[in-house]
Amino acid sequence: MTTRIACLCPGKPVLRDRADAVLAMAQAEFPDVELRFHTQCFLEQGHFAGDDATRLDALVSTANDPGIDAIWFGMGGYGSNRIAGEAIPLLGEAACDKTYLGYSDNGYLLGALYTHGIGKPVHGPLAGDIKREGGDDAVRRVLKYLSGQNVPLESGLDDRSTVAFNLMTLAMLVGTDLMPDLTDHVVLVEEVAEHLYAVDRLFFHVTQNLKGVAGIRLGRVSDVPDNDRPFGATAEEIARYWCAKSGIPYLGRADIGHDSANAIVPFGKR
Amino acid sequence: MTTRIACLCPGKPVLRDRADAVLAMAQAEFPDVELRFHTQCFLEQGHFAGDDATRLDALVSTANDPGIDAIWFGMGGYGSNRIAGEAIPLLGEAACDKTYLGYSDNGYLLGALYTHGIGKPVHGPLAGDIKREGGDDAVRRVLKYLSGQNVPLESGLDDRSTVAFNLMTLAMLVGTDLMPDLTDHVVLVEEVAEHLYAVDRLFFHVTQNLKGVAGIRLGRVSDVPDNDRPFGATAEEIARYWCAKSGIPYLGRADIGHDSANAIVPFGKR
Repeated sequence: MTTRIACLCPGKPVLRDRADAVLAMAQAEFPDVELRFHTQCFLEQGHFAGDDATRLDALVSTANDPGIDAIWFGMGGYGSNRIAGEAIPLLGEAACDKTYLGYSDNGYLLGALYTHGIGKPVHGPLAGDIKREGGDDAVRRVLKYLSGQNVPLESGLDDRSTVAFNLMTLAMLVGTDLMPDLTDHVVLVEEVAEHLYAVDRLFFHVTQNLKGVAGIRLGRVSDVPDNDRPFGATAEEIARYWCAKSGIPYLGRADIGHDSANAIVPFGKR
Repeated sequence: MTTRIACLCPGKPVLRDRADAVLAMAQAEFPDVELRFHTQCFLEQGHFAGDDATRLDALVSTANDPGIDAIWFGMGGYGSNRIAGEAIPLLGEAACDKTYLGYSDNGYLLGALYTHGIGKPVHGPLAGDIKREGGDDAVRRVLKYLSGQNVPLESGLDDRSTVAFNLMTLAMLVGTDLMPDLTDHVVLVEEVAEHLYAVDRLFFHVTQNLKGVAGIRLGRVSDVPDNDRPFGATAEEIARYWCAKSGIPYLGRADIGHDSANAIVPFGKR
């Protein structure tokens, strides 16, 4: 049975050579996968892969296309929050039968879909991750997952509902119309390219806004920029500190991050 | 009548030469001002001017000292949010008779004081701003203000309650225990050293979390780092966009920012 996957870029564009590498792998290794990149993925409009109207239209028309089984996000960047709120009321029945897979900035969209019970939001590698070290494996893992093969998911998923977010994305989501109710959820977070003082600041904000969650697990905090002085605590010490202060159980590490090992984490119950 | 001012650093330390320059100006030009820098201001503990307990103790003991008229923050940096929540219940009657003046990271503390009706929180230049171009004037303006002389405040203040915050600080404040109720307030925001996509992201978050305010005024957005591509909108276009989208009146520019022109803005009614 054929799995029809459409790649979209709700934030920044994907480079053509990355898309070509993903298409080549799909063709060589996944005869039962029909993969296409929407032309929107390659547009450039200031920061974004096309203006808001173009990215919104690509998202809504693809989500409402019953001939597509899964929407796979090509890149993160920034910008899915600018169209997520507008997209939700335009999504019909066909949009509910789909998997939506990506991470980082796409978390705004995954969160909004989860809030409204539309389709199956899944945290996992982007098509554009193929250019990372070990990125072939990350992309292969997603293609296997989307075509129904057995692949390892984030370890330690249990009977509790789970979500996974970039920490900054989650910090910007809380309190907005896009934010799902995460009561009794295990919340996985990861971060990239933020100073540790900014990670501390984000944990302050997020833990105060996540009362009632089952707990927080910390993914990788990578590419921390050099600062003029050491922060004085590690990322895990920061997570433990703010979890303890807000009464949220700290549940240990998670295998997510801006790297090719970034685990697949379906939102909700297993 | 003597005005007794104590400088504290709830975030990062102030450099000794900046403190000395401020003390020299106070001695030369303000015979009626008694100014001292708490020893805590010069400590270094990782990122902070002393550990949390030390900064908290300096803040609480100084605020509760009836022999001090005003607490002036020496630097911003990061860290006042780590002690503000603990400080509030420890503040007594003498703390309520004081002015608290600063900006940037100190906004967590100004916000918490305002939330609890403790003293007079004021947005304005830091002692450490003396090293900026024109910083002498900024510091002189604060010393005049704190000693009861007439100085120009932010222009356009009207009968509505007003607050002023660094945008990132306000974004991290919303939804927390420190956050004041800003219903019907005019909210002034400024930002420094953030990419425009990050400013856009912060406006998305803040406008969604500030429903019911009277309006937003935009201060300076300075030292925007170069990005690999232009964002495609100016800071003011970003402010207008998100204000319109969330139904918050955009009320024009404000004369605040990370510079020596940074206006004095008393929190609350004029």
